Amino acid sequence: MQITPDLSRLLNELETLASFSDAPAPAVTRVVFSAQDLAARAYVQKLFSAAALELRTDAVGNTFARWAGTDPNVPAVATGSHTDAVPHAGRYDGTVGVLGGLEAIRALQRSGFRPRRSIELLTFTSEEPTRFGIGCLGSRLLSGTLSPESARQLKDSDGKSLEEALRQAGLDGSLENVRLANQFYHGFVELHIEQGPLLERKGIPIGIVTAIAAPATLRVRIEGSGGHAGAVLMPDRRDAFLAAAEIALAVESVAKATRSADSVATTGVCNVFPGAVNSIPSRAVLEIDVRDTDLARRDVMLSAIRAACEAIGVKRQVRVEVELINADAPAQASPLITEALSASCQALGIEFMSMVSRAYHDSLFLSRIAPTGMIFIPCRNGVSHRPDEYASPEDIKRGVQVLASALAQLAQ
Amino acid sequence: MQITPDLSRLLNELETLASFSDAPAPAVTRVVFSAQDLAARAYVQKLFSAAALELRTDAVGNTFARWAGTDPNVPAVATGSHTDAVPHAGRYDGTVGVLGGLEAIRALQRSGFRPRRSIELLTFTSEEPTRFGIGCLGSRLLSGTLSPESARQLKDSDGKSLEEALRQAGLDGSLENVRLANQFYHGFVELHIEQGPLLERKGIPIGIVTAIAAPATLRVRIEGSGGHAGAVLMPDRRDAFLAAAEIALAVESVAKATRSADSVATTGVCNVFPGAVNSIPSRAVLEIDVRDTDLARRDVMLSAIRAACEAIGVKRQVRVEVELINADAPAQASPLITEALSASCQALGIEFMSMVSRAYHDSLFLSRIAPTGMIFIPCRNGVSHRPDEYASPEDIKRGVQVLASALAQLAQ
Repeated sequence: MQITPDLSRLLNELETLASFSDAPAPAVTRVVFSAQDLAARAYVQKLFSAAALELRTDAVGNTFARWAGTDPNVPAVATGSHTDAVPHAGRYDGTVGVLGGLEAIRALQRSGFRPRRSIELLTFTSEEPTRFGIGCLGSRLLSGTLSPESARQLKDSDGKSLEEALRQAGLDGSLENVRLANQFYHGFVELHIEQGPLLERKGIPIGIVTAIAAPATLRVRIEGSGGHAGAVLMPDRRDAFLAAAEIALAVESVAKATRSADSVATTGVCNVFPGAVNSIPSRAVLEIDVRDTDLARRDVMLSAIRAACEAIGVKRQVRVEVELINADAPAQASPLITEALSASCQALGIEFMSMVSRAYHDSLFLSRIAPTGMIFIPCRNGVSHRPDEYASPEDIKRGVQVLASALAQLAQ
Repeated sequence: MQITPDLSRLLNELETLASFSDAPAPAVTRVVFSAQDLAARAYVQKLFSAAALELRTDAVGNTFARWAGTDPNVPAVATGSHTDAVPHAGRYDGTVGVLGGLEAIRALQRSGFRPRRSIELLTFTSEEPTRFGIGCLGSRLLSGTLSPESARQLKDSDGKSLEEALRQAGLDGSLENVRLANQFYHGFVELHIEQGPLLERKGIPIGIVTAIAAPATLRVRIEGSGGHAGAVLMPDRRDAFLAAAEIALAVESVAKATRSADSVATTGVCNVFPGAVNSIPSRAVLEIDVRDTDLARRDVMLSAIRAACEAIGVKRQVRVEVELINADAPAQASPLITEALSASCQALGIEFMSMVSRAYHDSLFLSRIAPTGMIFIPCRNGVSHRPDEYASPEDIKRGVQVLASALAQLAQ
């Protein structure tokens, strides 16, 4: 069987998808259920239909595009990723897994291959946490990691609930119906850019992911005392932003203190209130991302950050409230998938290495209901979540080839 | 002459003015040229007209409401303040000077007083720096402190220019015509809440301002390197927000290091870009307010902050750019005005004290073209720029009485 991806078509589609953006090119901003996100969804669904895939969308907006197999009674094989993008991101994160997955299916169709198991291409809702503060919203619900009740509590920063946003996006089904049964899929494989520098540094085109690091997210709300910047004397101040500044620096120290390269912690969000140059900040909100491949070490970091928050609150006489938004366990890839991937690489004559994913993905949650694995391709300088994110056409092509070959093997 | 302010009418008007707000009561948010600001302007101008004052509005939206004197050829006496409000402010800052000024004029009208000099009530545009990053926009232009060319460079955070905002507010005159001649007014008196705790602590109802502290504003832009929060290792990071956090803490240290109670420095604005929990901050913008009653000491603080910015930039390998937005000289009140005010207090049997204003006001700029002074009234706990800002009806009444009496004396 000869698998020949149509690379120029795929690159054109990636370029078109990048044009659905709230930021000027080359930056891509596509926050879930924004007008641009809805337009991007419509665009990819049109491509799925053109490839004769049957479409289904669940109540949270996860999309399932199915190439029916000859035996409809056995569990399907699935692939997929996401099309939403954090503010000022690039064009490859997630999209390579969706459009690359589509091209893998089209290449298999062109080759004359006829799968026994159906093959499904999944597009997950809100892999990025930008809007509702929690990443992998769609795959969390789908895998039962997030309950429909908890999902109904979610609000965006304008106070709009997830349910309201879903209604406005034309999705009015019940969230209770999103959950899939365990072992619903025979296997799930996600193609993704590495978002780190290792493959590029080693000059290896394919990474087979054996484990996904365990992320945790904290939200810290700080309440001090405001006032006029000219009138309140320095010793009388309870400045919420200065407490936030000390907490952010403590977060950095905590991650560095583990002395492990796998420990990372980031304060990516800092909102200061009221945010006027002549007003002392009365409130601040931080959002902190803490990750490690080792769950125990990550939890040590979380405890140390909580302790720092408390000490800084006492010292500055501000109220500090720490909320754990999510703290997921790391996932191991399934040997069923990693073996299919390594066999595919060998058959195609493509060099590969086993590696850990420090970024987290919908695969983390899919692994709870199905044998799961990931294919990484290199990205320039390890850069992601930036406009200069880049994966070369050759690397994308090799990723699609390996994916198509593995899907064929798993679907036989 | 019996001056009897109609306190309940004035309190009603203050309450109505507070209802023009983009924040829920008791908070007041009224940013210059927002729909609420335009509605508030229309409301006070209707009140001015009802008091038979002649209205004029200049090209930047400063409003002049004139009670014509018997001798139209001599310079007028003026009072006034502003009606814009920082986000989540209270209802007294500025408004007491505008509506209290109006009530002072109405009380004089009712008393049968007929001024020789005209009395003008001024409402200045954008005393607060919220939108265009520079405070006292109207009075700066009016006094020639800000040139029309510089004003034309101003943009809000959406990139909209001041001129565009003026056009949309229906103001299409030339900014060249805003400047008033030196000694245009015989004198200017502004009634204002103290925005500090001294009058309340001492139990004295009236402060006569002898000097206004010199404010300076810095904008610091920090450019680091973004990336995915899970993927970039800690030693490889150039996190713009962590540099911003260190700078904000340095600003605090610098103000405390002078060991003078009159030195204050505040980082009131911190914008982090891209502002997603799983993206390393690539850029941050700080706005810093630095004040002192002593110009030399303030400039020492500015230099120390610049030095800290440079050192932090080098240490964290981020680009730090410091822009001096404004650095005004302190103003001394005119004896003509302070003597009229103390004579008024004595005539009314109201206790007063001389004091310095650490907050700055349109009076700072009016002092460059006319003999100027200010009346302070107490505000509860010294609180301002907060929803719980409060001045008692009795204190407001005494302020209006002193203002009316001084205006009468100066206009004779």
